[in-house]
Amino acid sequence: MDASRPLDALNMARGKRVIVELKNGRTYVGVLRAFDIHINTVLEDAEEHIDGALKRKLGMVFLRGDTITVISPQ
Amino acid sequence: MDASRPLDALNMARGKRVIVELKNGRTYVGVLRAFDIHINTVLEDAEEHIDGALKRKLGMVFLRGDTITVISPQ
Amino acid sequence: MDASRPLDALNMARGKRVIVELKNGRTYVGVLRAFDIHINTVLEDAEEHIDGALKRKLGMVFLRGDTITVISPQ
Amino acid sequence: MDASRPLDALNMARGKRVIVELKNGRTYVGVLRAFDIHINTVLEDAEEHIDGALKRKLGMVFLRGDTITVISPQ
Amino acid sequence: MDASRPLDALNMARGKRVIVELKNGRTYVGVLRAFDIHINTVLEDAEEHIDGALKRKLGMVFLRGDTITVISPQ
Amino acid sequence: MDASRPLDALNMARGKRVIVELKNGRTYVGVLRAFDIHINTVLEDAEEHIDGALKRKLGMVFLRGDTITVISPQ
Amino acid sequence: MDASRPLDALNMARGKRVIVELKNGRTYVGVLRAFDIHINTVLEDAEEHIDGALKRKLGMVFLRGDTITVISPQ
Repeated sequence: MDASRPLDALNMARGKRVIVELKNGRTYVGVLRAFDIHINTVLEDAEEHIDGALKRKLGMVFLRGDTITVISPQ
Repeated sequence: MDASRPLDALNMARGKRVIVELKNGRTYVGVLRAFDIHINTVLEDAEEHIDGALKRKLGMVFLRGDTITVISPQ
Repeated sequence: MDASRPLDALNMARGKRVIVELKNGRTYVGVLRAFDIHINTVLEDAEEHIDGALKRKLGMVFLRGDTITVISPQ
Repeated sequence: MDASRPLDALNMARGKRVIVELKNGRTYVGVLRAFDIHINTVLEDAEEHIDGALKRKLGMVFLRGDTITVISPQ
Repeated sequence: MDASRPLDALNMARGKRVIVELKNGRTYVGVLRAFDIHINTVLEDAEEHIDGALKRKLGMVFLRGDTITVISPQ
Repeated sequence: MDASRPLDALNMARGKRVIVELKNGRTYVGVLRAFDIHINTVLEDAEEHIDGALKRKLGMVFLRGDTITVISPQ
Repeated sequence: MDASRPLDALNMARGKRVIVELKNGRTYVGVLRAFDIHINTVLEDAEEHIDGALKRKLGMVFLRGDTITVISPQ
């Protein structure tokens, strides 16, 4: 990896399937479509997981940045 | 979808029915009328849901951005 | 409604009776007199409700914006 | 009232006795001496109330704005 | 008092013994030596009180502004 | 160490294995690849620990700065 | 002490052993090496204490400013 800034590293995950974890314990898995400097994030083909179990299949989700704790490529 | 910025993606949901989830666990379903860079959001023909059950039918609701966790088109 | 920005939509409720909900669960009902970009809000002829019951009649109340979750015209 | 901005409305309460409620449930009653755009607020001849009961008489109190939820003239 | 701005009022307490209360319930009593616009505050000859009881005598303490709720001269 | 600014000190840990602790009690151990002024942080070869036990091996993780409490080289 | 600004006072503790308390109840004791205007703080030869008991000896620790409540020289 050759990304010395966190958002460059995040940019390398664009178009790939990522796991996004929120402060409220929920997890969203989907294709990373967009993010901005606030880490507002848009996933496509997203699934919502609560306590490890699939709760809902969603299409596009917009996740407000300040509610996100961790983003990792699957 | 051709929106590389989160707010562009959100803009594509304008005029459509969306689900907005708040940090306090409440959910609002309504037509996405307006939002700004703070994610302050206005819905029309909105319904308030608590624990999955319809609680109230509302007309217009203004949701303060910092209380929002997730927005997804229905 | 012809308001593409959330604060324009809120402005259309000025002078009307609105319900304002706070993060601490309290609700204030009153005439929307003023608000600013932080959503600091002033109501007149306000009533405070806790758990759905009228607790106090108040005259003017100033509500600090960051404590507000939802504003809706009654 | 002729104050279209929340801080103008608050300014009309300057020199009057107000009730200030904090996020931690405490209430301060005193003469509104000063406030700023962060809603940092100074009361004089202040009393601290907890759960509706007078706890302490204080002289001047400085209340940090981000801890305030509601200010209303008594 | 002739201080129309909260920080001017606070400035009049400089060099005097004040009580500083934090969001976590702790109280510090000491001589107000310094503060800034964030309400970062420095006390000298400070004592830490928890639940009303003296816990520790400290020399100088730096209190981060956003953890402070109330400052009042003793 | 000759780093008078916190981010300079953090920079000396770049490329080394660090422990990152979050406000929600989770710990991530990995190679510090990138960070920015918000302390948004990217680790590689990361492991997630909960209550001291290894929970998951992850590749790259992006940790939002405002959720981080402590970073220390292992 | 001749420091009228909080960060000047904090600067006088640079190179000395300080106690840093976090919002989550943890305490770090170490030599104050660096801090910035956000109160991001770096300690060397640091020890982590939980509930008054030494938990871990650490070398360098970076503490994110917004998690800090109190800093005091030992």
